[in-house]
Amino acid sequence: MPVGYVQIPVGVAGPLLIDGEEYTVPMATTEGCLVASTNRGCKAILMSDGARSVVLKDGMTRAPVVRFSSAARAAELKFFVEDLLNFDTLAVVFNRSSRFAKLQRIQCSIAGKNVYMRFTCSTGDAMGMNMVSKGVQNVLDFLQSDFPDMDIIGISGNFCSDKKPAAVNWIEGRGKSVVCEAVIKEEVVRKVLKTNVAALVELNMLKNLTGSALAGALGGFNAHASNIVAAIYIATGQDPAQNVESSHCITMMEAINDGKDLHVSVTMPSIEVGTVGGGTQLASQAACLNLLGVKGASRDSPGSNSRKLATIVAGSVLAGELSLMSAIAAGQLVKSHMKYNRSSKDVSKLVCPS
Amino acid sequence: MPVGYVQIPVGVAGPLLIDGEEYTVPMATTEGCLVASTNRGCKAILMSDGARSVVLKDGMTRAPVVRFSSAARAAELKFFVEDLLNFDTLAVVFNRSSRFAKLQRIQCSIAGKNVYMRFTCSTGDAMGMNMVSKGVQNVLDFLQSDFPDMDIIGISGNFCSDKKPAAVNWIEGRGKSVVCEAVIKEEVVRKVLKTNVAALVELNMLKNLTGSALAGALGGFNAHASNIVAAIYIATGQDPAQNVESSHCITMMEAINDGKDLHVSVTMPSIEVGTVGGGTQLASQAACLNLLGVKGASRDSPGSNSRKLATIVAGSVLAGELSLMSAIAAGQLVKSHMKYNRSSKDVSKLVCPS
Amino acid sequence: MPVGYVQIPVGVAGPLLIDGEEYTVPMATTEGCLVASTNRGCKAILMSDGARSVVLKDGMTRAPVVRFSSAARAAELKFFVEDLLNFDTLAVVFNRSSRFAKLQRIQCSIAGKNVYMRFTCSTGDAMGMNMVSKGVQNVLDFLQSDFPDMDIIGISGNFCSDKKPAAVNWIEGRGKSVVCEAVIKEEVVRKVLKTNVAALVELNMLKNLTGSALAGALGGFNAHASNIVAAIYIATGQDPAQNVESSHCITMMEAINDGKDLHVSVTMPSIEVGTVGGGTQLASQAACLNLLGVKGASRDSPGSNSRKLATIVAGSVLAGELSLMSAIAAGQLVKSHMKYNRSSKDVSKLVCPS
Amino acid sequence: MPVGYVQIPVGVAGPLLIDGEEYTVPMATTEGCLVASTNRGCKAILMSDGARSVVLKDGMTRAPVVRFSSAARAAELKFFVEDLLNFDTLAVVFNRSSRFAKLQRIQCSIAGKNVYMRFTCSTGDAMGMNMVSKGVQNVLDFLQSDFPDMDIIGISGNFCSDKKPAAVNWIEGRGKSVVCEAVIKEEVVRKVLKTNVAALVELNMLKNLTGSALAGALGGFNAHASNIVAAIYIATGQDPAQNVESSHCITMMEAINDGKDLHVSVTMPSIEVGTVGGGTQLASQAACLNLLGVKGASRDSPGSNSRKLATIVAGSVLAGELSLMSAIAAGQLVKSHMKYNRSSKDVSKLVCPS
Repeated sequence: MPVGYVQIPVGVAGPLLIDGEEYTVPMATTEGCLVASTNRGCKAILMSDGARSVVLKDGMTRAPVVRFSSAARAAELKFFVEDLLNFDTLAVVFNRSSRFAKLQRIQCSIAGKNVYMRFTCSTGDAMGMNMVSKGVQNVLDFLQSDFPDMDIIGISGNFCSDKKPAAVNWIEGRGKSVVCEAVIKEEVVRKVLKTNVAALVELNMLKNLTGSALAGALGGFNAHASNIVAAIYIATGQDPAQNVESSHCITMMEAINDGKDLHVSVTMPSIEVGTVGGGTQLASQAACLNLLGVKGASRDSPGSNSRKLATIVAGSVLAGELSLMSAIAAGQLVKSHMKYNRSSKDVSKLVCPS
Repeated sequence: MPVGYVQIPVGVAGPLLIDGEEYTVPMATTEGCLVASTNRGCKAILMSDGARSVVLKDGMTRAPVVRFSSAARAAELKFFVEDLLNFDTLAVVFNRSSRFAKLQRIQCSIAGKNVYMRFTCSTGDAMGMNMVSKGVQNVLDFLQSDFPDMDIIGISGNFCSDKKPAAVNWIEGRGKSVVCEAVIKEEVVRKVLKTNVAALVELNMLKNLTGSALAGALGGFNAHASNIVAAIYIATGQDPAQNVESSHCITMMEAINDGKDLHVSVTMPSIEVGTVGGGTQLASQAACLNLLGVKGASRDSPGSNSRKLATIVAGSVLAGELSLMSAIAAGQLVKSHMKYNRSSKDVSKLVCPS
Repeated sequence: MPVGYVQIPVGVAGPLLIDGEEYTVPMATTEGCLVASTNRGCKAILMSDGARSVVLKDGMTRAPVVRFSSAARAAELKFFVEDLLNFDTLAVVFNRSSRFAKLQRIQCSIAGKNVYMRFTCSTGDAMGMNMVSKGVQNVLDFLQSDFPDMDIIGISGNFCSDKKPAAVNWIEGRGKSVVCEAVIKEEVVRKVLKTNVAALVELNMLKNLTGSALAGALGGFNAHASNIVAAIYIATGQDPAQNVESSHCITMMEAINDGKDLHVSVTMPSIEVGTVGGGTQLASQAACLNLLGVKGASRDSPGSNSRKLATIVAGSVLAGELSLMSAIAAGQLVKSHMKYNRSSKDVSKLVCPS
Repeated sequence: MPVGYVQIPVGVAGPLLIDGEEYTVPMATTEGCLVASTNRGCKAILMSDGARSVVLKDGMTRAPVVRFSSAARAAELKFFVEDLLNFDTLAVVFNRSSRFAKLQRIQCSIAGKNVYMRFTCSTGDAMGMNMVSKGVQNVLDFLQSDFPDMDIIGISGNFCSDKKPAAVNWIEGRGKSVVCEAVIKEEVVRKVLKTNVAALVELNMLKNLTGSALAGALGGFNAHASNIVAAIYIATGQDPAQNVESSHCITMMEAINDGKDLHVSVTMPSIEVGTVGGGTQLASQAACLNLLGVKGASRDSPGSNSRKLATIVAGSVLAGELSLMSAIAAGQLVKSHMKYNRSSKDVSKLVCPS
């Protein structure tokens, strides 16, 4: 089927020290300065005892839309599938789709006589979209007997929501929800990031929080999470179309220890990754996953490889945010440099990631 | 700098007949069925006299954030830069950044004593982010003399808004704003798309409009625009991190000619593409641009190559929407097939793009 | 404390036939045509065998924000309060705030080292904000012993979310979530609403779904729900400041019975009403509640009065949507009337509600 | 038509010192503590040399939706009405609707073959909805001759956007866009507001910015603007249904003068008020407008009364934000008080506004 291949340069950033382990992070991008910038962030984290992460949630979703002749009947379906007494039965039916699929929740949203059932399930080390779609199909077939008047409009009704910016993912999460943090020492902020804690804290408040609020942002309370997510996704054979919601991120920067040090964190509710299936099987992508030590399915604990990959994505975003935010905060200097006839090319390079 | 390369398979969809020309569209994706699905949409369009597009707007943006000691002063800056009497002066200063940069507008948003100035300018055949950043820096330097108390917090204050889902791009546009349409004949809907007009119109209303509304979507009123945008962006050396907003799209499907035929359209306000610079210079990516006949800068009419690329992206999204929506609308059939023990793999394949 | 009173004219619309009962709906508004318009909608519903409603959910929310020294600790709190094994204990503590308070759920959202705990509980016939606030305070005091390092930043952290447009209410609901529907016969659409089914269905798709999507609306997929909600809230002593989210509504209009009749519905996830406490005790407001037969607390089934009031609000919104949408759909006629020198005042009156 | 009246208690807050003038602000609310809370904020402002405001924009909007047989034609209409060469002609036609109506801008948004034209115009001292609707009707009639194939679907297509939470109002503004600020001295924060600058700045960042970001808020980056807007709107005969967007507000709190003092501001882009017409003519409402000295139309400078009313609304919101945020920030104390058996009723009262 393919008529050929495009080659994307892969650079590596790191070592990224996160949860006590060091990783060399592969980034596929045509923008060299993005790797350099992320690398600087990794250095700042490494010199500050590393980053720590927590996987807050792990479940892929799919939401079919079905229609009835009345809202009354639509409500009956909602009450039925949301009734905990029916959960075990529906889970058994759903989980037949795969030995890794474990149904977690069914959340229904109603618009008149139409019902949108958002199924959430764990999917082992697979990103899990097909697994979920099959499970959903199983449940729809099963429900048809109790609800013969249920008209299945579509296996996906966009309440999932896949590859679109949607509040439901931002609030409920999709795939892996991860928070990653680090404490950057004052000296490191000054020497490695070439700025200071106060400037970073203020820039974060005015740009990532206030500026995004004014722009009507949805889950976009960061500087350039999408850059890092896209680069790692392409390198490791993930679905780059999913970086729409996978890059949802709120970056927080707070001064601690009497304003001396910086607490920085990224909270990302919808990192959709897998270490088996899809593009992960291609040679160069598999090599990148091996470089991270997360290739394939985890025998001992299914899902641990994909969860680890999600934390590496978050940790790399943390590094990327630190570096770009510092470059912007130091912009004043840069600016004066320009006046002194330094190459304005460097300037644009420094800030090019965002 | 790069330690190696990842290879992404490239498939071609087409011919895509749009605005009287036929294109073979390169798509870099690890998901074969995405190319097949888009190809089916191209066929439906080709058999229906092709698609037509209009570029509604063309301008890249960047919004620095500056701070004053009072909102009163912040307002003075807003009034100054938005005053048409000052526009020519500011444009001259801004346009020094490149012979292709042409300032179009400065829109200010205020949060207390902080001002976010959203600069919009045309950028020839370049995507234009660096061009705009330099122009913005020029204007900031210039304004400093009239507003010495202006504290430049950051060259980007997220009101731009780059690589985040933000209403400002959805409403004002960023890069190329394109609408693309086609009239699909009843016969083609039946024979090529294996469904019918009424089913498609209803699915579009319940999934792309209603479902996305329930999900709290922002610019995500489509089935899977992001899949097509990402695949073409990677193939042609665009910035894949920008598909966050480049895939903003509202898909409309309306029955016409007494319900016999289908009018389908995609409206995409923020397609950020270029045919020069960045990844477009790499061998395989350049080859893909050549395949489309839009490589490099247009001598005769600067910007026409990048605008044409934007219309091809929109046209391909139109094809992708037609095919996936049809696959979902035909799901009922597929479903019954499953009951008759057909491979459920095919099912997931058919709907895998979304 | 009060220095005086303002008088708001009260008109009545109805009878509103919903769930088999007829109500005379009091509307406090200075805009006479709003009552007349709603009244016309009630007539259309009455002539079509009435409206039916379902209360999908009933729970008031409050979300305090607390801070820890690390995201790791923040995650521990999240896991603790979301652990079903701890729910009963927390519920006992929470429910001490009132004999009507019944904790339903605690949903945590994290931003770095900060936790936002969204408490949902049923509140009998009271709107319930104070009840919830006290319950939350009880739980915070209780948690402090297990989490002595928990720094309580605020009893409300805006993840509640009260009196602001927020996706969390639109998706999760706040107060009463109600869906209300009716089938309007073709003849009634023609004779009472002066338009036709096809025109209404198309207008709803282009205005309430598509137009709102383009505007970047959040929960605003309707014509003028806020008009009716505000009028009834003021008449019955509700908190008019809450109509921000109480008027969240998606209006659906679909042709049924081979396009002959109209299925219309409104789905409103956050109707925040009470029949005891606050403004419901004032003489004129109490009279309006009595007019509806829902004054005070229900002895037999606590909460049934406030739930009934919520359904009446939804039913009235249904009537209001039907009438205004019809007036707009018939605008063409109106327009020609203008050309023939009819008073343009009538025109503006007819469409004035929105 | 009215069958009676409801009486809403009116309390007064103030004096509110803004732009050098003192106002006694009438608030119609059934919640006494809301007036008391706002009053405390006014006192803090008064003791800090008052608040200053700027009206950033003044224009009411209305956006009809029209349909063509193709997107190509839809684009032609967009280009025509947005062409500055045609503006004067369209303005003349539009302005016939009233001697106060002055067309400012027409912004078109397209969805396939449908066009949404957002008209913005100044409306003197009237809120202006009817004025705009008539002007829009005039232009639609006029355009019909050049675009006979233009099908007018509705005089309002929800891109206006009236009485719904929509990003277009948040970003572009509707009615009066106002920013209001004050510098609260450290001593006043301590003695009047019973808290400290650092606590307020942190609470604002974690609640009004971060918490609202997590909630997926749209224009809801404040504590309880809606409470104050609703109370003043009802007292002065405004349309309370419009507080949905009129209460859009971002509250900023920043430490200045080496962290000693507090700079606080509210930026509200869509305050929709008028001092003539509608409910402003009723006796008690007129009295409240007289109390503020803004009743009726301004002879000398049309529009100045309604603009002044808008600044008073913003100033009162500033006071309300200061007071509630302080009450929440001081919650820790309050909490300990509770432990010492103080009435928990007072507690809930203190924080009841939000």
